[in-house]
Amino acid sequence: MRYSKLFGRTRHNPPCDADSVNAKLLTQAGFVEKLAAGIYNFLPLGQRVLTKVCNIIREEMNAVEGQEILMPSLHPVDIWETTGRRKTMDEILYKTRASGDKEFVFGPSHEEVVTPLVAKYIQSYKDLPLSVYQIQTKFRDEPRAKSGLLRGREFGMKDMYSFHTDEADLDKYYEVVKDAYLKVFERCGLTAYVIEASGGAFSDKFSHEFSVETPAGEDTIILCEKCGTAQNLEIAEGCSACVCGKDCGNKCCDEKELPMEEVKIERGFSVAENAKAHNVPDAKILKTVVYEVEDGGLIGIVIRGDLNVSDVKLERYLKRRLRPATPEALKKVGLVQGYISPVNIPEEIGISFVADNSIKGVKNFVTGANKFGLDYKNVNVGTDFIVKEFADLVEVKTGFKCPKCHTALSEIKAVEGGNIFKLGTKFANAFGMNFADNDGKLKPVVMGCYGIGTTRLVGTIVEAKHDEKGIIWPKSVAPYLVHLISLGNDKDVLNDAEDLYKKLNKEGIEVLFDDREATAGVKLNDADLIGIPLRIVISKRTLESKSVEWKERTNAESEIVPLASLVKKIKEFQK
Amino acid sequence: MRYSKLFGRTRHNPPCDADSVNAKLLTQAGFVEKLAAGIYNFLPLGQRVLTKVCNIIREEMNAVEGQEILMPSLHPVDIWETTGRRKTMDEILYKTRASGDKEFVFGPSHEEVVTPLVAKYIQSYKDLPLSVYQIQTKFRDEPRAKSGLLRGREFGMKDMYSFHTDEADLDKYYEVVKDAYLKVFERCGLTAYVIEASGGAFSDKFSHEFSVETPAGEDTIILCEKCGTAQNLEIAEGCSACVCGKDCGNKCCDEKELPMEEVKIERGFSVAENAKAHNVPDAKILKTVVYEVEDGGLIGIVIRGDLNVSDVKLERYLKRRLRPATPEALKKVGLVQGYISPVNIPEEIGISFVADNSIKGVKNFVTGANKFGLDYKNVNVGTDFIVKEFADLVEVKTGFKCPKCHTALSEIKAVEGGNIFKLGTKFANAFGMNFADNDGKLKPVVMGCYGIGTTRLVGTIVEAKHDEKGIIWPKSVAPYLVHLISLGNDKDVLNDAEDLYKKLNKEGIEVLFDDREATAGVKLNDADLIGIPLRIVISKRTLESKSVEWKERTNAESEIVPLASLVKKIKEFQK
Repeated sequence: MRYSKLFGRTRHNPPCDADSVNAKLLTQAGFVEKLAAGIYNFLPLGQRVLTKVCNIIREEMNAVEGQEILMPSLHPVDIWETTGRRKTMDEILYKTRASGDKEFVFGPSHEEVVTPLVAKYIQSYKDLPLSVYQIQTKFRDEPRAKSGLLRGREFGMKDMYSFHTDEADLDKYYEVVKDAYLKVFERCGLTAYVIEASGGAFSDKFSHEFSVETPAGEDTIILCEKCGTAQNLEIAEGCSACVCGKDCGNKCCDEKELPMEEVKIERGFSVAENAKAHNVPDAKILKTVVYEVEDGGLIGIVIRGDLNVSDVKLERYLKRRLRPATPEALKKVGLVQGYISPVNIPEEIGISFVADNSIKGVKNFVTGANKFGLDYKNVNVGTDFIVKEFADLVEVKTGFKCPKCHTALSEIKAVEGGNIFKLGTKFANAFGMNFADNDGKLKPVVMGCYGIGTTRLVGTIVEAKHDEKGIIWPKSVAPYLVHLISLGNDKDVLNDAEDLYKKLNKEGIEVLFDDREATAGVKLNDADLIGIPLRIVISKRTLESKSVEWKERTNAESEIVPLASLVKKIKEFQK
Repeated sequence: MRYSKLFGRTRHNPPCDADSVNAKLLTQAGFVEKLAAGIYNFLPLGQRVLTKVCNIIREEMNAVEGQEILMPSLHPVDIWETTGRRKTMDEILYKTRASGDKEFVFGPSHEEVVTPLVAKYIQSYKDLPLSVYQIQTKFRDEPRAKSGLLRGREFGMKDMYSFHTDEADLDKYYEVVKDAYLKVFERCGLTAYVIEASGGAFSDKFSHEFSVETPAGEDTIILCEKCGTAQNLEIAEGCSACVCGKDCGNKCCDEKELPMEEVKIERGFSVAENAKAHNVPDAKILKTVVYEVEDGGLIGIVIRGDLNVSDVKLERYLKRRLRPATPEALKKVGLVQGYISPVNIPEEIGISFVADNSIKGVKNFVTGANKFGLDYKNVNVGTDFIVKEFADLVEVKTGFKCPKCHTALSEIKAVEGGNIFKLGTKFANAFGMNFADNDGKLKPVVMGCYGIGTTRLVGTIVEAKHDEKGIIWPKSVAPYLVHLISLGNDKDVLNDAEDLYKKLNKEGIEVLFDDREATAGVKLNDADLIGIPLRIVISKRTLESKSVEWKERTNAESEIVPLASLVKKIKEFQK
């Protein structure tokens, strides 16, 4: 392709409304163009990348026996009423009234279509397992479409659905698809981690996310670099450091329980201020965080002062939705903010307590006495207050140890690149999709579903692969392999560049040829911005030695390569 | 692919609501499955055909320098208001109110998106010409979705848009795309004719349709098999036979004008009854067809009795919309139905007349005298009545001669497979898409657009290529090249079939392997229904001679082919 003919050139400046690296670079480099919030045009360069991404996904889904189909976007509303999602997903559904006043939903997902469709063809266990997928457009009325291609209102998606006789067969296939997904990300040049999906009170733990490492990702992943365990921060498990913070093996807690005392004290409300006033480490403060429970009542979480409660872990543990208690709610029942603790709390207040495991074994805590200016010191669990329930409610952070191999954990930033779900029989039950098992009994089909956003993946690659100059496409998904540039107006240079362009095309090498009359600066900057893996420059200087300048986008250095061996070297590079 | 694993099997009976050959066969054979009227799922076999069709289109569009892009389906309503089509296309637009109460339109076409998109990148004449296309889903709220994949509410389409400095450049490219389209149809195994698009009063003649010959098509095409001229019946031109019907070269009209006479007669109202009563050929009856004009008034079309008026030609000629006059409208002004003619009509009736060219040169017509039971005979134009306007208003039919080469014309049935339009500067004006020409002046960009329905094309192929047993896929778009069948339960047969299946796969030959335990009847009937080009049967009988049965779907006969030479023969067949 000649750059002079290409539709969609680079712009001098990024769009002023770009809210993310991918939106900024992809627009500035001429890959996409925003039509409206969360709705993008793909220009030829972007379309080429998207096609390559889709083909990688297609190959990996075919390799796990996925059969490609294509389902419609226009869904009669009744199928959405059958599953109840017309109501539960109402906010994000685009709806339309068609001729004859029938309501249609524009598909944000396809369980409602694929289940009755597959049901038509499944009679017996012999028809199972089965896995079908499509690469198709999804519509979701995201209230906050943002982050360029990462969260759109209209976006491409590969969604696969699998059908099984039982959970065990689903479990097996689920692992197969997990591996296929990891291959997809790897082939796209990304580092992805499978993590258990977080989710609130009612999450079912049958879902995994693929977290792709990106410097500016909106998710935080807790990673053990030794054993590879990756966890979503919100639900990560880990072993906290001991009270001294020096990893002494809990020797620091080897002290005698002292008798509890009341202490009048002037202090601030924060843990740090509290610890300073009492001259103890933060970890010796017994912190109590109070929540209001969705359906009424208060609950206090007792945790070591240097640690924080994970709201998501807590909601999952309690299986209820919570919110931090308001000052008014505390006051109403007679709790004194800044001095709350489980010690000597009158029963009529009606608050229950759960303790994080971190307080086990720690002696002689300092905590509030539920009166302004009054604290207790030498507070010991079991002696001075009773905890009925202990649980793992702590938010893991850097410094915690891996629960599997006890190596120090680190935090990385990531974006979600895909997710997979064990749907069980939920949709089969809704649509009466049963099969005759080999015992002759009718049973509901067990389903799994597996999604990767295709357009989102293009955006994710840019988030993960760029520098201050522009995009750095992995070879597998680059719009072209070679960015050929001629510098200057010397006739011999122009002719040789033309010849080389034709030769590379003939060899089946994908080339973008910048044949414009433009300065070296413009051409070289554009090449960096567009991010094609290999830049080849022909100039008067290189021609004198019958060679070209070879520069890989991932390398700062360039080298001089003789024209005679160029094709061979490119073909090796391509591998 | 093993048929036993394939999602989407054949059905015993066609769906009861199938309204067309393509819906019936594609559903029965397991290619598609209807979700709602005009909305279809593509199962794996259908998806394979669709992909091949799309790739053929893609190759031909790339060959004419089309650059592939992808535009969204969700369009902010304001761009549709800019062109006025929010109103003029209202009936077929799916609309939705999104969060924030903004209205969006689901794209039935993409001029409103592509024009402002391309405008961003076009500054000067150096940026032109440009041609971009997409293969994407369209949404149209068709009041009468019908004919399976031929007229859907959601359908696949390749739409290309070209941009030029002037009409001449557009004209040149328009012809290039015309040829590319003919190649697409040819590669899909279809016979297509380029015809001027018909259209009513306000059509602009800057549009062509590609009519694909199909036995049950809804359009009638007038074809000259000698010179290849194809015309839409509604606007076809042709030379009518002379009055005697024997092609005497108009000698039959070499008679003397006789003086007009009034004749009292008892006769029926039809031309045939009239001619019989007067003992003249139908062609000697001077027929007058009266229309009411949209904006008031009556017009009478005078034509030879054996010919019919083409409403579309008439509307185009008058540039007004018309409808046949009602008996009440005729009575009101004093016209006597069955006896209307332009002869001696009182001026106060206020009817004007236009004559079809067919009455020129014909002498001594018979016609009505605008009184019940009273006719005139020996009526001659110019002598007994004056016609101010002559025009070509006749509906061409079999027996007419080609206006170019004077060969007898024939009628064929066809469906529209694509269309191309010269849009001129309509959209450029709406969006202010101008370019600086080499004279320094700002001028509007001249546009063309070019559409082929991709899913419709799949349906059209089935309409054109089937017999009473099922579909007959052309090799270029067949889901698989070879349908391999093993007959019986003989272990050697099963093993050899397995081996052959693996061998063909290894050779890169696309095979559907019917490995089911099923009767020969079921397997062979299914093969005919599915319509894969080459059927290979392995049975105990063929194995005895180390051979297979080879049957092409287009041939009634089969032959025995030695296993040893099979692959070579298949590869030749594939070419």
